[in-house]
Amino acid sequence: MPKVVDRDQRRLELARAAWRVIRRDGIERASVREVAREAGLSTGSLRHYFGTQSELLIFAMRNVMEQVERRAAAVQRPNDPLAAAKLVLAELLPLDDERRAENEVWVAFMARAMVDPPLGSLRDEAYDRLREACARWVSALLPGGSEAQLQLESERLFALIDGLALHAAMRPASATAARLSAVMFHHLEQIAGRRH
Amino acid sequence: MPKVVDRDQRRLELARAAWRVIRRDGIERASVREVAREAGLSTGSLRHYFGTQSELLIFAMRNVMEQVERRAAAVQRPNDPLAAAKLVLAELLPLDDERRAENEVWVAFMARAMVDPPLGSLRDEAYDRLREACARWVSALLPGGSEAQLQLESERLFALIDGLALHAAMRPASATAARLSAVMFHHLEQIAGRRH
Repeated sequence: MPKVVDRDQRRLELARAAWRVIRRDGIERASVREVAREAGLSTGSLRHYFGTQSELLIFAMRNVMEQVERRAAAVQRPNDPLAAAKLVLAELLPLDDERRAENEVWVAFMARAMVDPPLGSLRDEAYDRLREACARWVSALLPGGSEAQLQLESERLFALIDGLALHAAMRPASATAARLSAVMFHHLEQIAGRRH
Repeated sequence: MPKVVDRDQRRLELARAAWRVIRRDGIERASVREVAREAGLSTGSLRHYFGTQSELLIFAMRNVMEQVERRAAAVQRPNDPLAAAKLVLAELLPLDDERRAENEVWVAFMARAMVDPPLGSLRDEAYDRLREACARWVSALLPGGSEAQLQLESERLFALIDGLALHAAMRPASATAARLSAVMFHHLEQIAGRRH
């Protein structure tokens, strides 16, 4: 079914064009018209793939989520939970150019989601999935932890990851991969009770 | 000089009107015209106080920064650095309605600052001030810490605070004052080496 493949491929290209507009001009400028212009299409052609700005933004946001989850799922996991947590959770941090772009777009989505109900629902879905992933890693790192301790540490880990990502978007020059990883690894080691 | 007082007071009221528009409709809608309408003024009257949207947003953003710093400065500080850190840093968390409003507006500013250079400069100023405040508290909590350790812990504390604030804006219902404080206090106790 080459038609379907083409359509999916084209939608992905348009999502990327939306990313570029969002990073350059802000999310409020990522209208159907502007994204069409960025992609070198007429507005009419773009509407063949996305009827509204909201549809386009939701697709672009879901695209970020899927990319992150695909990368995390592809990680070869060592048996040691601490080593595995470090490798998998690093996928959530903007450690290279691709992930930095993704992260900046994500920050724009988070702000917009506060006043845009359809994006808000998707944001809530992403929030819950990440929160659960943090809870699973904390359980693996703290096998004997009490309910209260696991909850506290899950919230702390989740907040730390999003805070690091937010700061990386705000101050990219000082958020080097080495510094982001060092903070994250130190935190995971402390949860696991293995400080160095 | 009643004239000057009135003018300052009026600018503050307009900043608050801008906050309300930002929280309800998003920052891109906080134009001079919309904020004037929200405040019950004509666009022409608002321009008497703020010539451009950018001026208005910068004033409103600086207003948030000053409010936070005023509150932090007003805290009675116990001699124990851990007890003092808990009290002062709690001022950065959205623990009541006023601070929740402030925090939501702040998240909108952070996203807009990524594509708006004048807001970007002010955001950088706020970033540096908060980063320094975190460094000072970490030094107080870890008096014998090495340079590397102090830097790592400052970055970690700063990211945690902003991550907690971001999550509180995203999911207000689960970010109760008790939960936010519990995570923050646990973190400060751990830095100070006093786990409970």
